[in-house]
Amino acid sequence: MAERSEEVKLLGMWASPFSRRVEIALTLKGVPYEFSEQDIANKSPLLLQSNPVHKMIPVLLHNGKPISESLVILEYIDDTWQNNPILPQDPYHRAMARFWARFVDEQIYVTAMKVVGKVGEERDVAVEATRDLLKLLEKELVGKNFLGGERLGFVDIVATLVAFWLMRTEEVVGVKVVPVEMFPEIHRWVENLLDVDVIKKCIPPEDEHLNYIKARMDSLKLKSVQ
Amino acid sequence: MAERSEEVKLLGMWASPFSRRVEIALTLKGVPYEFSEQDIANKSPLLLQSNPVHKMIPVLLHNGKPISESLVILEYIDDTWQNNPILPQDPYHRAMARFWARFVDEQIYVTAMKVVGKVGEERDVAVEATRDLLKLLEKELVGKNFLGGERLGFVDIVATLVAFWLMRTEEVVGVKVVPVEMFPEIHRWVENLLDVDVIKKCIPPEDEHLNYIKARMDSLKLKSVQ
Repeated sequence: MAERSEEVKLLGMWASPFSRRVEIALTLKGVPYEFSEQDIANKSPLLLQSNPVHKMIPVLLHNGKPISESLVILEYIDDTWQNNPILPQDPYHRAMARFWARFVDEQIYVTAMKVVGKVGEERDVAVEATRDLLKLLEKELVGKNFLGGERLGFVDIVATLVAFWLMRTEEVVGVKVVPVEMFPEIHRWVENLLDVDVIKKCIPPEDEHLNYIKARMDSLKLKSVQ
Repeated sequence: MAERSEEVKLLGMWASPFSRRVEIALTLKGVPYEFSEQDIANKSPLLLQSNPVHKMIPVLLHNGKPISESLVILEYIDDTWQNNPILPQDPYHRAMARFWARFVDEQIYVTAMKVVGKVGEERDVAVEATRDLLKLLEKELVGKNFLGGERLGFVDIVATLVAFWLMRTEEVVGVKVVPVEMFPEIHRWVENLLDVDVIKKCIPPEDEHLNYIKARMDSLKLKSVQ
């Protein structure tokens, strides 16, 4: 648990899956934190100074020391507050968790972004490629309540990107990337996630989020036309 | 130290910086291992079966259990054999090490690859972009013998990619990306690396390596002409 004298501040953005990951981890650990909403279009001096390399949210400031990149922050939180472990204790299971977390960010996220950015045949190709990757996640979920096993863990926190960003974006794009007939395990897992208080508390409110995604997609479309 | 009953096997490729990282880490820990050279152009059933997701080297097989992705493998090695720690013990320093390791792979490596793949003005742009990133590494080295501080650590092992791949490729490409006048700290650090027995033992022999890089570049050029 955090000590009273500790200062934990998150430079984040309410609709970002990367920022929300950090909120989930801090909430799971019971660490009180101050959330500082950042304007991505007009970056604050504090953000620029705290993450001079990437100039991106999220940044965790712990007693003034900045840590950036969401996967690095999650590991830091787990190393610092050791109650309610996020990563498994066994080295092999830790490695598997790190492997799948990277898979979500480097493969699923990168590929799924193309579904949003493309139209017509190119989009169909991106949808198929995303499904091929999701099939691996689907397989990982067989016989498990969570990607972490019996309870929420590192990969679940990272893969909320799939559960609540990719699967909400579908509704806006109007293309079902993750149909329940094809991905019953993933849909079951999303229901399990929604049974976890920390998750319910830390994901963006649905209506507001869908409106945000819609506005963002419209601006992307506008840019692609220009 | 590894116990006698343990089986540690590395599916790797002699000229790959990612594969060599794993060799450095195992050697540093004093873990005996069997090295299995893989033919990248004709992937073995063992490689395909051990890393079905990415189908890439390196893969560490520890008592038959496969772990892939070099950064994940390095963490696994450090979690499993705790002598001669690779990552710092302090959570903040651990986070910084993870941050810079990712920076090497996601920023420097990706950008430096464009120096190799491009010609003319596009290459000049890539050289400048690579130097801008290397300036951050240069700054990190001020007052330190290694990126890990007083001794070789996680970021040093990862950044051998800069010291012995990027800086050897320069010689072949004929474009000085990391001139000593501009990067005195990086050059001092490379000398420090070369004073470490484990590094000397684990990097590819220079002549053979330069010939390999040259052949690879020629094949890349050929492809870009076709």
